[in-house]
Amino acid sequence: MTTRLIPFIRDRAVGQSLPAPFYVDQEFFDLDLDEIFSKRWLFVAAEAEIAEPGDYVTITFGTRSVIVTRDDAGRVRAHHNVCRHRGARLLTESGGSTGTIVCSYHSWTYGMDGRLLYADAQAPGFQKSCYSLRSVHVRTIAGLVFICLAAEPPTDIDEVAEIVEPYLRPHGLAGAKVAKQTDLVEDGNWKLAMENNRECYHCDGHPELLNVFFPTWGYSDNEAIPGRLRPVFARYRQATAELIEIWDRHGLPYPRIEQLDTRTTGFHIEREAMDLAGESFTLDGTIACTRLLGDFGEKRLGRLSMHMQPNMWLHVTSDHALLFSVIPIAPDKTLVRTTWLVHADAVEGVDYDLDRLTSVWDITNQQDADLVALAQQGISSPAYIPGPYGPSEFQVEAFINWYITALRANLAIPAAPITPTLITDTAETA
Amino acid sequence: MTTRLIPFIRDRAVGQSLPAPFYVDQEFFDLDLDEIFSKRWLFVAAEAEIAEPGDYVTITFGTRSVIVTRDDAGRVRAHHNVCRHRGARLLTESGGSTGTIVCSYHSWTYGMDGRLLYADAQAPGFQKSCYSLRSVHVRTIAGLVFICLAAEPPTDIDEVAEIVEPYLRPHGLAGAKVAKQTDLVEDGNWKLAMENNRECYHCDGHPELLNVFFPTWGYSDNEAIPGRLRPVFARYRQATAELIEIWDRHGLPYPRIEQLDTRTTGFHIEREAMDLAGESFTLDGTIACTRLLGDFGEKRLGRLSMHMQPNMWLHVTSDHALLFSVIPIAPDKTLVRTTWLVHADAVEGVDYDLDRLTSVWDITNQQDADLVALAQQGISSPAYIPGPYGPSEFQVEAFINWYITALRANLAIPAAPITPTLITDTAETA
Amino acid sequence: MTTRLIPFIRDRAVGQSLPAPFYVDQEFFDLDLDEIFSKRWLFVAAEAEIAEPGDYVTITFGTRSVIVTRDDAGRVRAHHNVCRHRGARLLTESGGSTGTIVCSYHSWTYGMDGRLLYADAQAPGFQKSCYSLRSVHVRTIAGLVFICLAAEPPTDIDEVAEIVEPYLRPHGLAGAKVAKQTDLVEDGNWKLAMENNRECYHCDGHPELLNVFFPTWGYSDNEAIPGRLRPVFARYRQATAELIEIWDRHGLPYPRIEQLDTRTTGFHIEREAMDLAGESFTLDGTIACTRLLGDFGEKRLGRLSMHMQPNMWLHVTSDHALLFSVIPIAPDKTLVRTTWLVHADAVEGVDYDLDRLTSVWDITNQQDADLVALAQQGISSPAYIPGPYGPSEFQVEAFINWYITALRANLAIPAAPITPTLITDTAETA
Repeated sequence: MTTRLIPFIRDRAVGQSLPAPFYVDQEFFDLDLDEIFSKRWLFVAAEAEIAEPGDYVTITFGTRSVIVTRDDAGRVRAHHNVCRHRGARLLTESGGSTGTIVCSYHSWTYGMDGRLLYADAQAPGFQKSCYSLRSVHVRTIAGLVFICLAAEPPTDIDEVAEIVEPYLRPHGLAGAKVAKQTDLVEDGNWKLAMENNRECYHCDGHPELLNVFFPTWGYSDNEAIPGRLRPVFARYRQATAELIEIWDRHGLPYPRIEQLDTRTTGFHIEREAMDLAGESFTLDGTIACTRLLGDFGEKRLGRLSMHMQPNMWLHVTSDHALLFSVIPIAPDKTLVRTTWLVHADAVEGVDYDLDRLTSVWDITNQQDADLVALAQQGISSPAYIPGPYGPSEFQVEAFINWYITALRANLAIPAAPITPTLITDTAETA
Repeated sequence: MTTRLIPFIRDRAVGQSLPAPFYVDQEFFDLDLDEIFSKRWLFVAAEAEIAEPGDYVTITFGTRSVIVTRDDAGRVRAHHNVCRHRGARLLTESGGSTGTIVCSYHSWTYGMDGRLLYADAQAPGFQKSCYSLRSVHVRTIAGLVFICLAAEPPTDIDEVAEIVEPYLRPHGLAGAKVAKQTDLVEDGNWKLAMENNRECYHCDGHPELLNVFFPTWGYSDNEAIPGRLRPVFARYRQATAELIEIWDRHGLPYPRIEQLDTRTTGFHIEREAMDLAGESFTLDGTIACTRLLGDFGEKRLGRLSMHMQPNMWLHVTSDHALLFSVIPIAPDKTLVRTTWLVHADAVEGVDYDLDRLTSVWDITNQQDADLVALAQQGISSPAYIPGPYGPSEFQVEAFINWYITALRANLAIPAAPITPTLITDTAETA
Repeated sequence: MTTRLIPFIRDRAVGQSLPAPFYVDQEFFDLDLDEIFSKRWLFVAAEAEIAEPGDYVTITFGTRSVIVTRDDAGRVRAHHNVCRHRGARLLTESGGSTGTIVCSYHSWTYGMDGRLLYADAQAPGFQKSCYSLRSVHVRTIAGLVFICLAAEPPTDIDEVAEIVEPYLRPHGLAGAKVAKQTDLVEDGNWKLAMENNRECYHCDGHPELLNVFFPTWGYSDNEAIPGRLRPVFARYRQATAELIEIWDRHGLPYPRIEQLDTRTTGFHIEREAMDLAGESFTLDGTIACTRLLGDFGEKRLGRLSMHMQPNMWLHVTSDHALLFSVIPIAPDKTLVRTTWLVHADAVEGVDYDLDRLTSVWDITNQQDADLVALAQQGISSPAYIPGPYGPSEFQVEAFINWYITALRANLAIPAAPITPTLITDTAETA
């Protein structure tokens, strides 16, 4: 990293969006990959994607391709997707199933546990045991697979798991199946994709989602809410009261836990009511899959929502789960992957119509991609200056806090003494 | 800017094309955007493109997108196309008409004068007046709109306006209408696009244009003219004598004023005769639009031509005006925008056939684009060395003088003492 | 060159693939063009491509475009493809025939010997003789054309020519004709394309080629050969014995000469037997062209194979010759050009079927391109660490030796003292 980046990290002004270089500069992008995506836990897949031994997915962060697989003993493993001979990429598909990992170049062959099993025509004294695939730390939490590329991953993942597992486990994600997975490339920096997800201030741009998603999310009391949203807020309070009764009846934990910028593995989890029928992400709020997740007979559970820094959020309703991962491609390109899970026994065309199950978020994702692209374009202008976050954007602020804190910690950059921010804008309208 | 660029600016050799880095290097491209395109007056549109209040065009120099609009009071205004909240681009179309400027992201809403009118759900104490759009200096001259991105624009624009307005105003461009606008992306540096326009030494590559455009342009007397051009030169002198009589009769100023490299806002203006019928840029030289510009009944006016550094040239004949703007995209990519204006009352299909009106310059532009691409390719070779300008390329030299002078002034780089240029070319043909 | 590249060149570990920056870094790519491709002899064409005076080919190394032509006196010449006026590229086609070289921009006109013949409308005193095209050193060897972009090319090309001409000349390549030429862009660094060609350890990926190409190439004795290849090795020894008799009968030199990393113009030449009918690169090994090259009546000559650093290899059988050149485009893009030569009198459709002549190497080239792309992808990961070359990859090692030696010599970088390489891989499989 060149030293010119340091002042930006040291002097970040609280309460405002970040300066442009964080979003547009190749060096900051490289820094994000090295310091955030190589040193924090990343959500990479659902266990449902690698249900059987030999199943694998590959996932690429920048130039780092990783194989996530289930070994013959049923354990989830992760290895760098790089042959130990002359470095060829090993598995080229995004996923599949295989007995061994064979390099296409010179047929070096590895077990699903990463051990080199076979290398043709080597000199006497060649030690196969020296050429195992380089392993990557991996951790599952209630059916979700996380990796960490660092040699020494953050250890607080265990505490986080302990907190979130009681929320997640009743929904049986580990035994679910993938109904659909989409990859959407957004024309914006990965942080803009994350920021966009952390507030509903922009939710007027999501008319389909707003049938069931209360746009009052992020408002803490009735007084701060715009007049036009007060009827919605009343419905939200009524629905919440009804849901608390249901959650209590089923013994489901629901309090909001907000540790987005107060720990290394920042996260947030909560249960929330939904509008209309309150069951699922459909236009009328009724379930989209008649075979419900877990062991509930209860259709109306609202949504369980969780965020984890730096690259994940999810929603679980009674009938399906929606998992999102954010994968940086370039300073101005980000892959957003969406995975819909339903019960393993649910049958497409019988228990659910795929289009009805996925259409609301397919549309919502595209709307978000368009907004992220506009933000990237505007921020790229030298005329951009950081603007103020409003009260309902507090989780955007928390994301930025977490991000800046991570960079400062990794790079041993102290914060500048906090002084009131005075933006001198000399280019006022005449 | 890194210091490695300085010697190139300091040591520029007079009478020769520039060294390769000026045309191929990303750092020089960034420098051009920062020091030329952000600090000089730029031609951006015809007033005819924003005839009514609420009409707007957007124009982008590098990453700087600017909204040029007419406010409710009829004044032309320019603002950066960047929301003051989280920086989203506001207007995404190249032009249109609107009552207010609404950000797609969080609905912050601005008046056409740039004032923030509305921002939802802000904390108490939020001051709308602090978040007007950042304004850009704007100036109209006889129906042409210029902006300057600098905080303190060059002041000599007033002197230039005073000189050129008597030439331009009789043609009534402010009240004209747009017949057609084309955007052509040339595969070459913006300076090559400008240089190409500043000489007719290459005009053999424009057979269609040469029906009416005298290729003797740039030759100052009969002796220096190649033999094959002497008959043309005789026609040119004859036509000029006839035109002077016409111009005098209508009280149209016509003397050539050449201040291309002698002031900050370098320009050139002149009237010239044209060949054949001498009326318009058509294959036989007769008018393409029967409803003439301004208040003349006179079809044969030759052409009024004007250049302005760094990014504009234009031609006006009795029946239409042709405006050209040059917009850098990348070191090797440049947008050339061509706008055809006709009288506001002219009716397509009745007073003019659009194809006949525009075909000569459509073809000529493409020919120029091909030549600029060849220049870019060759200059990119390490084998390229600057070559000598011939006598008829004196306006290319003037453009380069202006450019180098601007960089030296902005960057406080003194010129090297002038010494005779000795190019030692050791790679002579064996 | 920035100093950060130096340690990589100085500390290169013997017996291993190169560290990633050599393959993925733009600065190393630029260095390769400046220090390897601008200072060593490069194979650019067959003389058959420029058989007649006025014939030319253009070839581009990075931004360096070169015209290779035959002048009116029948001599092969090479010049930079850059006009001496304002630098435009002169010839835009990959090949053709012309009487003079005329710049499209301002019609400056050069002879095929590079002399400026004509420049319109120049000031008195303009010296045409000062503006010849910049020449490039050129050398033909038995029908193959080599250029060197350096002012002072390596002089050992004469020694190399003296050694290889007796091998090549009997096949009459200078009088052959081009049957087909293909350009394949591989998604990998040029060194990976070269390395890939320097070993047959990967030949299981070439099932079509292996019908006639002994995959035992690179194994020095029976003991080191994998068991599955022993029957093939027996056939190879039998075929070799038979071929030696044939080569001796025709007075064809055949001993392997291996000077790949022991001289500036590193090369390798040898004759080898081929499997099945042993005549040509066809699926059954029989000739693909009934009009044989040179003056032999003998169909079964095996293959004459030659490599030359940094960018060429070739194979000659009794009926055709296959020439390969490697042309860097970007750190991760390389053009591999393949040229098939047959006797000048051979008639397509009569003496040879083009598809049968070329299909084996068309397929093989694509297979190699796929492998090179995998190598590039894997090496781009930060998880890549150099791996060990096996015994049969000794020519890959020789290529890397040559390359590192060239960089060290050109840049005056001493080698680090050789110490045993200990790769500490802390990321072992758990």
